[in-house]
Amino acid sequence: MYDFPTQGPPGMASDIKQLMREERRDSQEDSQEPTFEGTEKRIEIDFVWSGEKADLGARAISRSMWDKILALCECTIVSHKALKRLDAYILSESSLFVCADKIIIKTCGTTLLLQGLRTLLDHAVNELGLELEWLFYSRKSFLFPEFQRGVHGSLEDEVSVLREVCKDFGCSTGNAYVLGPLNGDHWIMWNADFKEVDSNYRYDHNLDIMMYDLPDDVRSKFFSSSASGTVADGMSEESGICDIYPGAVVDAINFTPCGYSCNASLDDGESFFTIHVTPEESCSYASFETNVRCSSEILVETIRRAVAVFKPGRFSLTHVADNGIIKELRGKDNLGILPYEHGVFDTDYKVKATSTYRWELDYQASVSSYVSRRSLSPSKTVSTIASPRTVSSEY
Amino acid sequence: MYDFPTQGPPGMASDIKQLMREERRDSQEDSQEPTFEGTEKRIEIDFVWSGEKADLGARAISRSMWDKILALCECTIVSHKALKRLDAYILSESSLFVCADKIIIKTCGTTLLLQGLRTLLDHAVNELGLELEWLFYSRKSFLFPEFQRGVHGSLEDEVSVLREVCKDFGCSTGNAYVLGPLNGDHWIMWNADFKEVDSNYRYDHNLDIMMYDLPDDVRSKFFSSSASGTVADGMSEESGICDIYPGAVVDAINFTPCGYSCNASLDDGESFFTIHVTPEESCSYASFETNVRCSSEILVETIRRAVAVFKPGRFSLTHVADNGIIKELRGKDNLGILPYEHGVFDTDYKVKATSTYRWELDYQASVSSYVSRRSLSPSKTVSTIASPRTVSSEY
Repeated sequence: MYDFPTQGPPGMASDIKQLMREERRDSQEDSQEPTFEGTEKRIEIDFVWSGEKADLGARAISRSMWDKILALCECTIVSHKALKRLDAYILSESSLFVCADKIIIKTCGTTLLLQGLRTLLDHAVNELGLELEWLFYSRKSFLFPEFQRGVHGSLEDEVSVLREVCKDFGCSTGNAYVLGPLNGDHWIMWNADFKEVDSNYRYDHNLDIMMYDLPDDVRSKFFSSSASGTVADGMSEESGICDIYPGAVVDAINFTPCGYSCNASLDDGESFFTIHVTPEESCSYASFETNVRCSSEILVETIRRAVAVFKPGRFSLTHVADNGIIKELRGKDNLGILPYEHGVFDTDYKVKATSTYRWELDYQASVSSYVSRRSLSPSKTVSTIASPRTVSSEY
Repeated sequence: MYDFPTQGPPGMASDIKQLMREERRDSQEDSQEPTFEGTEKRIEIDFVWSGEKADLGARAISRSMWDKILALCECTIVSHKALKRLDAYILSESSLFVCADKIIIKTCGTTLLLQGLRTLLDHAVNELGLELEWLFYSRKSFLFPEFQRGVHGSLEDEVSVLREVCKDFGCSTGNAYVLGPLNGDHWIMWNADFKEVDSNYRYDHNLDIMMYDLPDDVRSKFFSSSASGTVADGMSEESGICDIYPGAVVDAINFTPCGYSCNASLDDGESFFTIHVTPEESCSYASFETNVRCSSEILVETIRRAVAVFKPGRFSLTHVADNGIIKELRGKDNLGILPYEHGVFDTDYKVKATSTYRWELDYQASVSSYVSRRSLSPSKTVSTIASPRTVSSEY
């Protein structure tokens, strides 16, 4: 999982790289020790689907095909749960979710997510006959951009690959967006619409919380000298992860000497949350993502609980949602709170900034950055050296 | 006003330049004839001010000093009106407004706005003893970025100068933002806070409409073989500009063979609107900016009227406002419409996208892009050749 090229990332000098140069220098000075990039790269792809049970859609992609695609991304499957409407995979780096009409792949570290994209689309479209509808690539600004490899070394190269691949599969109108300050916490999106469809009322959304600077008492819960289902389940229990959403069935793994991942399925067989924890002090990070459809009150409470588990020094919250979800969260009285709205976390966190982008037809995306009101003074009770992780052969 | 370097703009290859390459190629193919870049670069600077009448603040900057600063930007003053709380200047390229506590400079074409910044700040701070509070630089994506000169040839170079100058005057935390798609209609902002002040309830805002693809019957109103106050006043009258805001006193100039600028003062002596028109078919553009404080209904009606004067094929609307303005526009019932909200122009225009950025404390900025619902089929009744403009010596 660790790979530290001695040279900087490939690709041309660039505006955004230039603007980030100062930021990088700072991060390099702070981190003389090895670091792990918890920040995930994420691809979400929607396919046209008949809605008929017999039509497997993207779930027809075989395990061996996924192994091949993920090998290109330089990660592997370590756990698989087949749910009613969803295949949920834990990867050596993050997670993969496959529904009939949707694929979500998240990979962290220095994986090469975009390296598997063409093979995936080629198989889905040309071999399985699936029809592409929408492709969305996103990621937060990296903690350690200088350690990223291949096209992930620069936004320019990422966008170049996305533009080329999307064009080859029929969409020449994709575009890139940077939400937030170029030289600070920001979120990158690539959006490509392969078909003009009315996606207003699918009630489709995705909420992602990216948490940094976890305190010692939280980090220490995700260290263990052995990796097994029992150890991982203990971590889910003791950390409070099991209590984030009532009735969630948590499939968890842990890494040695530290690290944790889980996919949790909710009772409808298509809702999930997924958590990935990088507990090393020098690069502590935890992410929580969910697609659960619920009221504004329950969603805000879910966010509060997820944040309460990890007590981050700062976090970013992204929300990509169709108009149906926005209306549902607003409620009949139009008073429901959207996840990114100022003030949701006022007691413990202060919102630093909010960016929103609304597309013409159906979706909006937002990212908010928060910082903890508590003064952070870590008490150094946990080993601070980030060392290579291994997953037990049990998985 | 025209300057067409045979080589591309200076500066390093860059992400955003790379991402725009395709767009540029398109625009170059479309425009073999000379073009004028109507899109303004804009600087807004707030100073600490005592509020006392005897304290001139930034209005103490002399005419000869402005001549010197504007010469660095490569433009000149062609008209000046001293109002109660505001000096309003029409420039050879756009406008300059000076209040005790605020300066707004807009320059279009291939002017070098940032080239005058250091001299301006040096004079204001070190010679007049003014205290900087906030500096904001913004511009829409250029129609013809390949013709921009100096640092305006790349976002990277613009940001580099802004970062350096702001740092030298005490602010190292400035940041750049791109609102909208990197390879499409977007708006660039640089924001630097020199002081942490509560600017929530100054009722300060700025609304800017940048209109493209004006129809022939609109463009033809801004052509004339002679330039004079009488001709310009006729243009203000016949185009409907005089009727945009009741009671506005319009100070207008025109250029030969075409082009028009005005500053209009409203009755409180500090509110204004300003309009700049580039009527050539190959690059038609008009901008309308106002700082008028009014109800949501009146503001939306003002926008409607400004858009109705120019009937653009597409336009972008930006709004930078403090929380006081937002609350005032929302009204007591919280139902007031903000200028950028979807649906304001539903009859004639379709909103393509909206980007919003909310800062932690006090301000929010937004940009929305609209396209006309009418099918555009220009009937070629007006000369399409853009030729050098001159301002009559009368001004």
